[in-house]
Amino acid sequence: MSKKPLYLGAAYYPEVNYFETIDQDITYMKKAHLNVMRMGEFAWSVFEPNEGQYDFVWLDNVIKKLYDNGIYTILCTPSCTPPIWLTRKHPDILRRDDDGQSACHGGRGHGCPNSPVFNEYVNKIVTAMADYFKDNQAVIGWQIDNEIYPWRQGCHCDFCMNEFYAHLKSKYGTIDNLNKQWSLRIWSIEYQDFNQIPYPKIKEWGSHPAITTEYINFQSKSNSDFISRQADILRNRGISVPIGTDMMPFLNQDHYITNQNLDVVMFNHYHSQKNFFEAAFWMDYISGLKDRPFWNTETATSYNGPNSTNPDYFPINFNYINTLLPFVFGAEMNLYWLFRAHYAGPELMHSSVITSQGKAIHNFDEIIQASAALEKCNEFLTDFKLSDPDFAMSFSSNAYNIFEGQKVVTGFHYTENIINIYKLLKEASVAPHIHNPNNTLEKIKVLYSPFLISLEEEDFVDRLIKWIKDGGIWIAGPLTDIRNQFCAKYIKSVFGLIEELTGIQNLYQIPATTLNNTIEFENGKKSKSYIWNDVFETKPQHETIARYKSDSSNIDQKPAIVSCKVGKGEVVVLGTMPEYTLLLELIKTYLKKADVLPSIKCSPNVIAVKRSNNQKTGYCIAELSNEKGSCELDGQYVDISSGKTLKGKIDIMPYSFLCLEKV
Amino acid sequence: MSKKPLYLGAAYYPEVNYFETIDQDITYMKKAHLNVMRMGEFAWSVFEPNEGQYDFVWLDNVIKKLYDNGIYTILCTPSCTPPIWLTRKHPDILRRDDDGQSACHGGRGHGCPNSPVFNEYVNKIVTAMADYFKDNQAVIGWQIDNEIYPWRQGCHCDFCMNEFYAHLKSKYGTIDNLNKQWSLRIWSIEYQDFNQIPYPKIKEWGSHPAITTEYINFQSKSNSDFISRQADILRNRGISVPIGTDMMPFLNQDHYITNQNLDVVMFNHYHSQKNFFEAAFWMDYISGLKDRPFWNTETATSYNGPNSTNPDYFPINFNYINTLLPFVFGAEMNLYWLFRAHYAGPELMHSSVITSQGKAIHNFDEIIQASAALEKCNEFLTDFKLSDPDFAMSFSSNAYNIFEGQKVVTGFHYTENIINIYKLLKEASVAPHIHNPNNTLEKIKVLYSPFLISLEEEDFVDRLIKWIKDGGIWIAGPLTDIRNQFCAKYIKSVFGLIEELTGIQNLYQIPATTLNNTIEFENGKKSKSYIWNDVFETKPQHETIARYKSDSSNIDQKPAIVSCKVGKGEVVVLGTMPEYTLLLELIKTYLKKADVLPSIKCSPNVIAVKRSNNQKTGYCIAELSNEKGSCELDGQYVDISSGKTLKGKIDIMPYSFLCLEKV
Amino acid sequence: MSKKPLYLGAAYYPEVNYFETIDQDITYMKKAHLNVMRMGEFAWSVFEPNEGQYDFVWLDNVIKKLYDNGIYTILCTPSCTPPIWLTRKHPDILRRDDDGQSACHGGRGHGCPNSPVFNEYVNKIVTAMADYFKDNQAVIGWQIDNEIYPWRQGCHCDFCMNEFYAHLKSKYGTIDNLNKQWSLRIWSIEYQDFNQIPYPKIKEWGSHPAITTEYINFQSKSNSDFISRQADILRNRGISVPIGTDMMPFLNQDHYITNQNLDVVMFNHYHSQKNFFEAAFWMDYISGLKDRPFWNTETATSYNGPNSTNPDYFPINFNYINTLLPFVFGAEMNLYWLFRAHYAGPELMHSSVITSQGKAIHNFDEIIQASAALEKCNEFLTDFKLSDPDFAMSFSSNAYNIFEGQKVVTGFHYTENIINIYKLLKEASVAPHIHNPNNTLEKIKVLYSPFLISLEEEDFVDRLIKWIKDGGIWIAGPLTDIRNQFCAKYIKSVFGLIEELTGIQNLYQIPATTLNNTIEFENGKKSKSYIWNDVFETKPQHETIARYKSDSSNIDQKPAIVSCKVGKGEVVVLGTMPEYTLLLELIKTYLKKADVLPSIKCSPNVIAVKRSNNQKTGYCIAELSNEKGSCELDGQYVDISSGKTLKGKIDIMPYSFLCLEKV
Repeated sequence: MSKKPLYLGAAYYPEVNYFETIDQDITYMKKAHLNVMRMGEFAWSVFEPNEGQYDFVWLDNVIKKLYDNGIYTILCTPSCTPPIWLTRKHPDILRRDDDGQSACHGGRGHGCPNSPVFNEYVNKIVTAMADYFKDNQAVIGWQIDNEIYPWRQGCHCDFCMNEFYAHLKSKYGTIDNLNKQWSLRIWSIEYQDFNQIPYPKIKEWGSHPAITTEYINFQSKSNSDFISRQADILRNRGISVPIGTDMMPFLNQDHYITNQNLDVVMFNHYHSQKNFFEAAFWMDYISGLKDRPFWNTETATSYNGPNSTNPDYFPINFNYINTLLPFVFGAEMNLYWLFRAHYAGPELMHSSVITSQGKAIHNFDEIIQASAALEKCNEFLTDFKLSDPDFAMSFSSNAYNIFEGQKVVTGFHYTENIINIYKLLKEASVAPHIHNPNNTLEKIKVLYSPFLISLEEEDFVDRLIKWIKDGGIWIAGPLTDIRNQFCAKYIKSVFGLIEELTGIQNLYQIPATTLNNTIEFENGKKSKSYIWNDVFETKPQHETIARYKSDSSNIDQKPAIVSCKVGKGEVVVLGTMPEYTLLLELIKTYLKKADVLPSIKCSPNVIAVKRSNNQKTGYCIAELSNEKGSCELDGQYVDISSGKTLKGKIDIMPYSFLCLEKV
Repeated sequence: MSKKPLYLGAAYYPEVNYFETIDQDITYMKKAHLNVMRMGEFAWSVFEPNEGQYDFVWLDNVIKKLYDNGIYTILCTPSCTPPIWLTRKHPDILRRDDDGQSACHGGRGHGCPNSPVFNEYVNKIVTAMADYFKDNQAVIGWQIDNEIYPWRQGCHCDFCMNEFYAHLKSKYGTIDNLNKQWSLRIWSIEYQDFNQIPYPKIKEWGSHPAITTEYINFQSKSNSDFISRQADILRNRGISVPIGTDMMPFLNQDHYITNQNLDVVMFNHYHSQKNFFEAAFWMDYISGLKDRPFWNTETATSYNGPNSTNPDYFPINFNYINTLLPFVFGAEMNLYWLFRAHYAGPELMHSSVITSQGKAIHNFDEIIQASAALEKCNEFLTDFKLSDPDFAMSFSSNAYNIFEGQKVVTGFHYTENIINIYKLLKEASVAPHIHNPNNTLEKIKVLYSPFLISLEEEDFVDRLIKWIKDGGIWIAGPLTDIRNQFCAKYIKSVFGLIEELTGIQNLYQIPATTLNNTIEFENGKKSKSYIWNDVFETKPQHETIARYKSDSSNIDQKPAIVSCKVGKGEVVVLGTMPEYTLLLELIKTYLKKADVLPSIKCSPNVIAVKRSNNQKTGYCIAELSNEKGSCELDGQYVDISSGKTLKGKIDIMPYSFLCLEKV
Repeated sequence: MSKKPLYLGAAYYPEVNYFETIDQDITYMKKAHLNVMRMGEFAWSVFEPNEGQYDFVWLDNVIKKLYDNGIYTILCTPSCTPPIWLTRKHPDILRRDDDGQSACHGGRGHGCPNSPVFNEYVNKIVTAMADYFKDNQAVIGWQIDNEIYPWRQGCHCDFCMNEFYAHLKSKYGTIDNLNKQWSLRIWSIEYQDFNQIPYPKIKEWGSHPAITTEYINFQSKSNSDFISRQADILRNRGISVPIGTDMMPFLNQDHYITNQNLDVVMFNHYHSQKNFFEAAFWMDYISGLKDRPFWNTETATSYNGPNSTNPDYFPINFNYINTLLPFVFGAEMNLYWLFRAHYAGPELMHSSVITSQGKAIHNFDEIIQASAALEKCNEFLTDFKLSDPDFAMSFSSNAYNIFEGQKVVTGFHYTENIINIYKLLKEASVAPHIHNPNNTLEKIKVLYSPFLISLEEEDFVDRLIKWIKDGGIWIAGPLTDIRNQFCAKYIKSVFGLIEELTGIQNLYQIPATTLNNTIEFENGKKSKSYIWNDVFETKPQHETIARYKSDSSNIDQKPAIVSCKVGKGEVVVLGTMPEYTLLLELIKTYLKKADVLPSIKCSPNVIAVKRSNNQKTGYCIAELSNEKGSCELDGQYVDISSGKTLKGKIDIMPYSFLCLEKV
């Protein structure tokens, strides 16, 4: 194996097949050049068939056998699936849904993250695993739990409620303050004690948006803490390889917070050709969460679905490019779910590397080809890091949860809108990096924050102000900076920060459908106005970029998009969402102004991600739409795979992958 | 203020903003010429922060401050929102849903109208409020509770069930009679005691329609009694200003019964331009429920929605005409919900008079313009009453509840059909008044009763017969007079009254889709037949107005619409719904026959409501579709606003409002 | 009455009308030539108004009165509707839904089939009825219960769960074996005792497909046993007339198993003109379940629906042809539901023979005409039996339940697909008989088994192999033979039987949408490939009938449809569903090869069912689409009704019915 390996592998459940298929499995692993297997994920009942009787020998044997064949192991803690002796002995560890019913045994993720008893049992088995495997050189990483997130708004048991009250008390101080911040005199809701607050019930009319958002944020935090405690156990018992938890693209679990006490960001995705740009978006976001290359821990070789296959099209070479996509975004690992298809049970209809009968899947060749491509490009991919982000777009779990609690505009979906804008920018070769407000702003020159409904995440406001004053260009809105940390409106100004920082006044706040206003840019270009209309009042120091055209004389000719210099930087406030072409033009203007270096120009179906090492630069390129595309190179490049020298406009073949080093 | 004031105002919640905004609020109230605020609606927790500790001083101060600025007050009893100390001490006062779960604290309307304990607490606070405020001259009216109706089919607690059994016992006498009237030998359902009857569960197959309808009628009555008891308390403690309860356009709460022991009908509506004719319909209905001008107690200045704004269009001047519309239908008050937008909580995304930040809403000017119009037309509007109804259309909660229990025809919606017919007639300037069966028939010449599935409401049948024999023309059907007071079919004839009264026999009853029959009028005009086909057999004294054309030889040429003289009057029975143009023609024929005076002819978008005082007549006119329209005046009129004299065909500008006095 | 009567009649509930309408009812029965009434179905509360007080005199009187007027009786046991004194005394007999809530009194089918107490009460009343009526010569048959099937997945009470555990224990032996067969190491689900297994909860993610399928099969079996116990009681008390239970076209109740201990298959159907071919399909299936002519126990005269009429079109003569359709498929009875429409209650809006007011329904004439046709054709219809099936198509409750537990392909509906193929074949005059795997294969020459996901029903596999080796042609697939009796995949081969029997290897299993492969037949005809793609590897002894055209080089040119001689017979395996025209061509080829006698050729809208007695043959013909059609006679025939001789191509009039005897 190379010194700086890239990993390609799969989830492997030898216990499910009673260890009868291992030899055949290894033959296929080697054929496909897989070099890592992820094991133990759901194996609690095999690890600990009865309370306190641990059995790790079987796994030790498998790990050894794989290692002898050049295959590393990622070990998983099995906390996602407590076994029947535990759920029977302690039924109060089961997740309780908001209808008051406990989860029943037979699924997964049925344990409560706040249950002391459950945590105790998890502690014991994780400790035992760590002690047993800590010196095993074949183990290159640990995964904690599996796809944790607040399923059905999370758990609502008494442990959770008590933790929730403690959380609220620590945030709000007094119940009177909570009553005021949530404005609970409306409907005489006012509580006299924290423990009178009910969890959000979906069926009640007018469920309070702050409760909804606080509860989901709390459940997300509870999950993070549950994961974090396991990470601490592992480290305390001597684990030194990277620890992570594999997460899904669900925003109600905060990816940043969850990964704070972890070493490596793990990500699972099941996108198909029809939403492949979404996969790119999430990887762009995931890749920036930590300074370390992320691990893509799950993806499918083809069709999938728990109990019936999805009806998607998976064209030839989709498996190839989907296998390589994470590496384009700087990953160092990609794992299939799963190696051998199950022969029974809930996830029977899922594609895999080999079938239940031990035959290669129809597109097995593409795995081999992807392995070969990785091997050829190994040095480039491990040596050339992602370039520093100078243009970024905000994306936040907190914003998502606030919008889920109170949509603001009927039919508005936060994630959908953000991803559409990402696609727009990506297709125009002005792709932003995706920025979590908790990440550093340091290298960013232009930050675009649409729909960032609240800025109040940790110390983001302070860092943002400093960054602007130091020269950053912040393009904000619409629907940005209009809720405080209590999910409430600001009272002094519509904005929490923007008016104070810029002096731009927000006169009217109107859903875009209410008046069907249009806007006109200073250069004469006209646009419909989408989603929302903030109508501004400006001062001489402001530059008006677009104005409303309106039937309402109070609104007509009033500013819709305004810019204001702040320190060495600038704030551009969008009161509305213009047509995408004009949004693009606007953003490009500020990128130019900020000397953001242009990427190489690609056709819309091609993404090119810049890489650099200490001396050199390059691009990692992938075609995402199964059509021929092109790139206009800004100099002379070497194609790492073929060794050929390229320049000028080059063709990019459907679903192809290229590593280009500038010469 | 004028001697006979018209009121324009809003709901006002100073307690929600901790009294910090009052001065600013009053400035805007005066700017908009608002002269009344509705207060206290949800303020129980501020009125009585702990059991028995009443605090009305804060409200007294606000009332005084407003009064000093020329603004009256409507006081509300807060029974819609029992506070946390009460719901915690007596959880059995909470509404119980049909899944057996109690409502949880945090919403509104969570108290059970039949709970003795809840009624006791309501009694206490209403008594205390009445005693405190009874001599306050600034208070011009009392509102009881808020928008009461059987939310989720109402409460299903033990108190309710016991009351329900008492109600059934008093109506049916014996359980054997109930078994027979409901035909409970079907499926061996037969009960042996009233207290064995379950409430209607939506999830069970074949829930009995009579239970469903009786239960909703009972819950509606329970709500009425709950309101009525509060009205009695207020009067007993010396309140002499008008008392009402603000109701929504939901028919499962009977508007007539609810208002029997009240002084003034209060109505809340949130229609937009897309269903503005519906608002007109409801006001037409509401205005006839009592002899006193109604109060429109809630409407929006623009967009609204509890947790996300509705995506409707609210054009320029919609706020203006929507503000004035109730006055067209004889109201003496219109109130916005709400004055200052909330800064947090469930109804954050609702338009208002001023924003959470204390700025005027974008269409604030239209409020000022509407105020001005009202002031100019004040004398006309207060002096000229609505003219007597000579053409009326039936509309009944009881019919609605029977159809909800058993739709009769798949896809049939009672209210939707009635409103569509209203719109048809209104647009043709032959608008009916909307008539509740419990209201007098005295001045009516022609009554049209489509889909009045049961006539058995109080003494309506007797009054109807007398009215017909005295010369009334009753146009009935389809689907009229086919259920008795027990929601059952009649057995001797399909009809309860019509066959006995007219001798018209109903041979076949068939859903219109079954055979796709058409009808042909005597004048040769042809029409599809909609919704239902009753096939008649006539006697020589009957006049056949339309006959079926059918593939079925049993039906072909048989009468579909038949008329019969009864005493000095006439009964016209529609066995089917013809095309609207032919329905209109038919109705016009009978209006002419009855010498119903034609209204002035208006274009479809314009409504003109006749007014008169002792000597003179006039019209109140409004344009509802935001398009230019016209009226053909039947003489010379003075436009009250401009003082100009008008005659002949005049233009009516989009969303305009006119008061015309005949000279 | 004739010696071999055919029966036309209705469900009759004289107790519901308190016996007040009997004389009028009988007049209409005689007018319509009805000769049988079905009574007692839901009359438990009248039979046994209080525990142990039986009253059958009323029914005896009615039976006698009808018999005196030439009308026979079918008696029903009332176990579907336990009365209030029973459900109150023993609430634990009520069906428990999967949300833990018991059914409430007021519907039907609320008793648990496994409750010992309920079975005891049922035992008592059935015994009492049998003793009372066993010698009554007017009674020609007994119906047990009504439309039993696992409504809402059946009952989930403790009695059921205990029976379920016993059932699993007897099938799987040990819990370890169940864990292995269901692969419960996935997610550490493994149980340590049978009684730890929860019933399937629809709300949980990833509910285990084997639990779902086993539970529904178990509930179906529980219902069968419940019915079977009643049949035993009846026989033990001396009932010798045919006993059955009326079943709906719901496949989650196994029609074969349910009828094993019964004498006559009873079937209820409510199809309309828009899905009339479905009615034909079900009757074809039902007619083959037992060697005895079936009874169609319910159908509507026209519109129907529990609480609102369905919006279907019921053209002239639909009632006529719908009345006769069962007889085309060999039935000896057809009964309307119901004779007199109810005057109140849940099924008010249902068509009937006479109305609640005692008038004939508008299409009453068509009943008279159908009676007349039956009388004319009586001898032919009773003497000429259905011909032996030589071409059959498989249809299985077990397959349906497996697909319901795990759809395999999103959007795939087993019944829908089977019925569409039936219609295709029927319209091409190559109609198959519908074959339940438990029925004999003896006379069949060609068996077509699409989507027969598991062959493991009783001894079907053994009988199938023997039948093929003896010369049968089995056309199988796609999705046939891929699950074992534990709802799991096979491990050695994709197929359980096919590979072993034929040597055809299944290389890849792919949902058809994944790659959009097409197929090409050896004769050059091309087709899209639907639903599924099995890619085969063949040996020299196999004949490839169609090959894939694919973007994937692993699949391109690989066999898609393969045939293999086995013994004297042949197996044709379809890896995919081709276009229907090519499927038809394929099937026709094998029918010809097997010397399956062609039916007479009819236009698509006409069905012709072959009949024969010892000497002669004939056809029973019906037109199903209300359009003129035709038949090409293969000789000279006599039209039984008219006595005319026919030959060559004859016209078949819309909705007409013909019995033709070959001369």
